[in-house]
Amino acid sequence: MPRLRLALAQTNPVVGDLTGNSRQILAAATTASARGADILALGEMALSGYPIEDLASRPSFLAASRTAVESLALELEAAGLGELVVIVGHPDGPFEPRLLGTSNAPTAIAQNSASVLQHGRVQARYAKHHLPNYSVFDEYRVFLPGDELLVMRIKDVDVALIICEDLWRDGGPVGRVLEADAGVLIVINASPFERDKDEVRLPLVTRRAVETDTIVAYVNLVGGQDDLVFDGDSVVVDGRGAILARAPQFDEHLLVVDVDAASATDVTLPDAVHRVTLSARGGDAPDEERGVETPTIAELPDDREQVWNALVLGTRDYVEKNGFPSVILGVSGGIDSAVCAAIAADAIGADRVWGVSMPSRYSSDHSRTDADVLAEAIGFHYSTEPIADLVMPIESQLELTGTAAENVQARIRGIILMGLSNLDGHLVLTTGNKTELSVGYSTIYGDSAGGFAPIKDVPKLLVWELARWRNEFALSRGEVPPIPANSIDKAPSAELRPDQTDQDTLPPYEILDAILDAYVTRALGRDDVVALGFDPETVDFITRLVDRSEWKRRQGAIGPKISGMAFGRDRRLPITYRPSNAH
Amino acid sequence: MPRLRLALAQTNPVVGDLTGNSRQILAAATTASARGADILALGEMALSGYPIEDLASRPSFLAASRTAVESLALELEAAGLGELVVIVGHPDGPFEPRLLGTSNAPTAIAQNSASVLQHGRVQARYAKHHLPNYSVFDEYRVFLPGDELLVMRIKDVDVALIICEDLWRDGGPVGRVLEADAGVLIVINASPFERDKDEVRLPLVTRRAVETDTIVAYVNLVGGQDDLVFDGDSVVVDGRGAILARAPQFDEHLLVVDVDAASATDVTLPDAVHRVTLSARGGDAPDEERGVETPTIAELPDDREQVWNALVLGTRDYVEKNGFPSVILGVSGGIDSAVCAAIAADAIGADRVWGVSMPSRYSSDHSRTDADVLAEAIGFHYSTEPIADLVMPIESQLELTGTAAENVQARIRGIILMGLSNLDGHLVLTTGNKTELSVGYSTIYGDSAGGFAPIKDVPKLLVWELARWRNEFALSRGEVPPIPANSIDKAPSAELRPDQTDQDTLPPYEILDAILDAYVTRALGRDDVVALGFDPETVDFITRLVDRSEWKRRQGAIGPKISGMAFGRDRRLPITYRPSNAH
Repeated sequence: MPRLRLALAQTNPVVGDLTGNSRQILAAATTASARGADILALGEMALSGYPIEDLASRPSFLAASRTAVESLALELEAAGLGELVVIVGHPDGPFEPRLLGTSNAPTAIAQNSASVLQHGRVQARYAKHHLPNYSVFDEYRVFLPGDELLVMRIKDVDVALIICEDLWRDGGPVGRVLEADAGVLIVINASPFERDKDEVRLPLVTRRAVETDTIVAYVNLVGGQDDLVFDGDSVVVDGRGAILARAPQFDEHLLVVDVDAASATDVTLPDAVHRVTLSARGGDAPDEERGVETPTIAELPDDREQVWNALVLGTRDYVEKNGFPSVILGVSGGIDSAVCAAIAADAIGADRVWGVSMPSRYSSDHSRTDADVLAEAIGFHYSTEPIADLVMPIESQLELTGTAAENVQARIRGIILMGLSNLDGHLVLTTGNKTELSVGYSTIYGDSAGGFAPIKDVPKLLVWELARWRNEFALSRGEVPPIPANSIDKAPSAELRPDQTDQDTLPPYEILDAILDAYVTRALGRDDVVALGFDPETVDFITRLVDRSEWKRRQGAIGPKISGMAFGRDRRLPITYRPSNAH
Repeated sequence: MPRLRLALAQTNPVVGDLTGNSRQILAAATTASARGADILALGEMALSGYPIEDLASRPSFLAASRTAVESLALELEAAGLGELVVIVGHPDGPFEPRLLGTSNAPTAIAQNSASVLQHGRVQARYAKHHLPNYSVFDEYRVFLPGDELLVMRIKDVDVALIICEDLWRDGGPVGRVLEADAGVLIVINASPFERDKDEVRLPLVTRRAVETDTIVAYVNLVGGQDDLVFDGDSVVVDGRGAILARAPQFDEHLLVVDVDAASATDVTLPDAVHRVTLSARGGDAPDEERGVETPTIAELPDDREQVWNALVLGTRDYVEKNGFPSVILGVSGGIDSAVCAAIAADAIGADRVWGVSMPSRYSSDHSRTDADVLAEAIGFHYSTEPIADLVMPIESQLELTGTAAENVQARIRGIILMGLSNLDGHLVLTTGNKTELSVGYSTIYGDSAGGFAPIKDVPKLLVWELARWRNEFALSRGEVPPIPANSIDKAPSAELRPDQTDQDTLPPYEILDAILDAYVTRALGRDDVVALGFDPETVDFITRLVDRSEWKRRQGAIGPKISGMAFGRDRRLPITYRPSNAH
């Protein structure tokens, strides 16, 4: 059986930064070549970053991407890496807009493509067939599907190439890989982290490998891009389903593995399969000279550690990719801001984190103490800005009472953080968790003000779990636990009026989070949520809060469109939806 | 030739309000029946409102929609309207998710459908074939395409039915309408207003009518839904391209017209065309008894009046559909807030508008005077809240200077408006125009705070044009012009420091708006914008401002996703894109 040395590079590209991303690819190629690889595969859109959204509809960006691919091929050659086969994902175009069978996308002028580089030029190209258009994906909106399959013959092995969603679809290009009798299937991906995703992703890769009796090499991007966090976890599985190599989650990594693949056959290629022959590295030199690679087989950590790592990486990359020198956040002594501070310190180091305690006349003594303990444990820059003297003139001039007055406290805190951000360039972190954002228990333009929300998608119960896990992790390494025990143990409160606690008006978090999971995440209707066994009145109360709080979650003002294009879509679930009431 | 009486109802549905929308349809049917119509057609999704976005993926909502369609048929029958053929758009489902050829949407379980109601039941159903997925449309994400055509035989006329995008696509169902030899083609639509859209929409309808030698009856929704404004403008065109009837723009209206259609033929129906026979109204009674309808042929007003009407309707419906009693806005004496106040008063009446003057130590005398004149001319509730004593304690406690200090003024104004909103339930209008939002000349959580932005998509030059038009319109009707002449004529300024004007740091608006049109609306690259003849340095300056101001336009904080679904997508063009720099 011929032996191929595969290198899979988990790079962390920045969307739009063709120059910087090319440098990442060159660096990976240099290492891969030094380790004797025949083929280096990078993630989906490794050259442009992912997702590129409306950039895919800009002809000028597509032209720049094409130039970048050609330049990359020349630079590889110039650096003495021309023999290495480099497979790199990028947008390709512009093509003429096409109106497709059942749908239509007159603004789609690009394809989600991969180029095969060798000897200073593009030897072949593949365009993704299946364009996901659900959940966080919008590809059908901006891409045209490809319809040809590519097989590369190298060292007497047929290597097929597909992109991400192509692997997931029964009856997709994978079927033709089987017909084409390929020995290796390379899949390049931009697959974002989700809790428990490894319970579907690895089994899928394994199933496809076994179905096609092919070695499947699955390479994924790594890094945060806006709300997405690509988790790497690249893997190579053989035709019996055994894991040959697996890269660590959430880290940039070059995974190198030797695979013994089936020899190419003379099977008649199915329709629309294109085959190119690539020259072998080092000509006829025997493989033995480069020794044997001992592949990495990384293990996945447990669920809480995975989530923590995703939040840390997402936060770090938002800060770094957007060029912020530092972050600032309010620290109240509560669990949410404590967890956010710990995430920020893990992401960019405590010396780039500014924490501000902003006590009001309602702040309890333990709030201040707990914030002090947190600052001490983590070691971030810490200051105190009392708000009473700033709130009072507004309350009294406007004669505000009740919620209107409570909100002023939160908004003055927002003004303080934004003011310090404007002075020193800090990114403001807002510390709301998914539970409170879901039910609208936050003040718009107040505590919800900020550019990045580390725990926006973390329900309250999980916030506590993460805090406990992070403290245990610190102890296991002989470090000081970052989160004060009292912040974890005390009853949560917004402290906007005397003796307030969250449970004055909300059900226990065990019930609240479970209802939100059913209604929001699983999109069940009101009756279906009740049928799970919850009290109907509680369900009605909670679902109504969710329906009405959409405005707060988005914050930006909607306005009437009068031109066809503006800055993307300006839509939210309006409170007129009220799905919970009727349905 | 058989004569049919068609009624096209421009209703204004509320998304999700199946009960209220059904009442609108019953009311239209009552009138249509009284006027002797054979067929009443309503707009696309008239039963559910449009767009329903993620509601289409909730099985409980789809079940409720099906029930609502069946109830509507029964109610029509019960009200003695059973003989009238009623064509009503609605989502249909839930169906099994299907993975389609080139794309895929595992969350799509609905079809964008129309039901034909008569005699208390659904006689036939049509599902939209072509699902637009560009610009403001996201249908391919949530709908499954239909593949059958429907022809209804009534009074010896074959009437075909399609939905919106189906009409726009060459080679779409319209081709089969031709083969099926239909005499009338009914198209139900949810087609949003855009400037100059009548230059493409009416010619398209006319072209299809002539191509197929068929009477085309085009019915559109009316009303604002979030950022979309459906403009009505329903029209009936005969096979020679002559307009037989046309409804007014932006108003709810029932358009009734008699058409003399070709008799049904015995042509063999093409594949996948389904024909139903419907009973004629009034049995064999001769048509003469119901007299002749003199159809309305409304004329479109000029561009500025159309835009004004769109902004007024969008604002009114956002207020009413979301249940706000009133609106509040800051009035600075400048042109933007003056135009917004006039729009608000036109939308819901001056007695539901609250204007607040919030002078600072930098506010000029003319600002206060111009705001006073505005309040007087329009007659809204008017109060003054000086901000100097609220700003000073913050500036001095935090030692803020420069932009950081300027922003405090804007943010205190935001706190004032939000505080008064929290007290009395007003919707806060934010008064930024498209030009300043594009370049980021606004303060996040400050003047940009608010739930609705009437002129968000109106470039500055057009703001002035609209102001002049509105004043002329008032004069032409013998009314007081609402907008102070001085607000129109003076140099625009944010007045956040002494003697500031917009043109201190920005190019003249003639150049600025033209660059933004090229870069933002037409999505040209930096070099292409320069090639239009603009100064390269100015283009670089402006495009960089646009790239960097995306955060301000959206305001909501992004955060890492850890579950597959949350509250929809959380994405913006990040400042890392920088398309202007490189491309």
